[in-house]
Amino acid sequence: MKIAVLGTGMVGRAHVGRLSELGHDVVMGTQDVEATLNKSEPDPMGGDFFVTWHEKHPDIKLATFADAAKESELIIGALNGQVTLKLLKAIEPNLSNKVLIDISNPLDFSKGMPPSLFACNTDSLGEQIQRALPQVKVVKSLNTISADIQVCPKNLAKGNHVVFMSGNHADAKAIVSDLLKSYGWQQIIDLGDIITSRGAEMMMPMWLQLMKTEGTSRFNYQIIKD
Amino acid sequence: MKIAVLGTGMVGRAHVGRLSELGHDVVMGTQDVEATLNKSEPDPMGGDFFVTWHEKHPDIKLATFADAAKESELIIGALNGQVTLKLLKAIEPNLSNKVLIDISNPLDFSKGMPPSLFACNTDSLGEQIQRALPQVKVVKSLNTISADIQVCPKNLAKGNHVVFMSGNHADAKAIVSDLLKSYGWQQIIDLGDIITSRGAEMMMPMWLQLMKTEGTSRFNYQIIKD
Repeated sequence: MKIAVLGTGMVGRAHVGRLSELGHDVVMGTQDVEATLNKSEPDPMGGDFFVTWHEKHPDIKLATFADAAKESELIIGALNGQVTLKLLKAIEPNLSNKVLIDISNPLDFSKGMPPSLFACNTDSLGEQIQRALPQVKVVKSLNTISADIQVCPKNLAKGNHVVFMSGNHADAKAIVSDLLKSYGWQQIIDLGDIITSRGAEMMMPMWLQLMKTEGTSRFNYQIIKD
Repeated sequence: MKIAVLGTGMVGRAHVGRLSELGHDVVMGTQDVEATLNKSEPDPMGGDFFVTWHEKHPDIKLATFADAAKESELIIGALNGQVTLKLLKAIEPNLSNKVLIDISNPLDFSKGMPPSLFACNTDSLGEQIQRALPQVKVVKSLNTISADIQVCPKNLAKGNHVVFMSGNHADAKAIVSDLLKSYGWQQIIDLGDIITSRGAEMMMPMWLQLMKTEGTSRFNYQIIKD
């Protein structure tokens, strides 16, 4: 499938790498291609410099957000929550009638730690994106999972943990579900309409706390039933 | 130990029954003893009428909130989130220097379903209670778990799931941890200070959604690590 991954950080890189491995025709979207290729700062999450990463993945095409979205059937938004709405709105025509997987969290670090959520309780970033882009089929998923576990759940406890999915469009959720299964996800819970992004995004403060308590980001939620 | 359970609903009944089984000297607190004994409406959560339940547990003492707290070393607040702060504040002198386990959730059903949280994101009900009652050692725990599983975690999947705990007082958390272990809890995560109640309470919207999706309240969260 022709897939665009918007974002060149840890999450974007993980998806691009995995999708390429799985044989998809994948393009990575960024704000400014030249600037990204010439970036000389280390990744804020401790990963490789972009150029170093790209040398290891020479086949990955890099394009502007607009061009990446234009040529793709499925879009994965692996963007910082604080800019995701603005960046997506700017390329709205190229997203029209397509499926957008939104992985972002509405994290606001401006008031110090722990971060708060800038959309929460009676709203969510997933809903904001769907409202702002009514022609796009938004599916919220994967937002509280570490990048490498998102794309290869078997990297953690043989994959015995859960991923949630929220969205208004059944056909879009079927496509996302197939993609998640191809990543190796065995337990996918469809929570319902995009309003259920609220619950999924509100799992983030506990996740951040657990990262601190447990001293690792290598964990995921599971739902235990009889 | 002398323990007061404040609240006569499903959660209060579950704790009272289990504590009594475990040999504690337990008293159940209510607003108005006579009114509770003469209640003729069914329990809103579908349980027995109070009088029917009490006939099955004739040894359980019933007292006012104030009297129940006064004679006890440990207090369990199994109260509706919307009234818990007011009811606890009214008996503040009787709670002084004691450990209070707060199980309540800040659920607001006034705007329809799904309920929103009246404290959230940059505050929590756990923090509100601790701020309002500075002489009380508040420990938030058990708030997203069904009553019967709270008091007997082995009732679900042999107990292989997790309970969180938040509070400012290490001595209080040690007492609560011992109580939880006596209930059968094997996996207790101390999240940190009472501020971490935010994360624990924000797990409630997902819990309510899952109850709908899964068609049962017989589930609990687990944290999967390698």
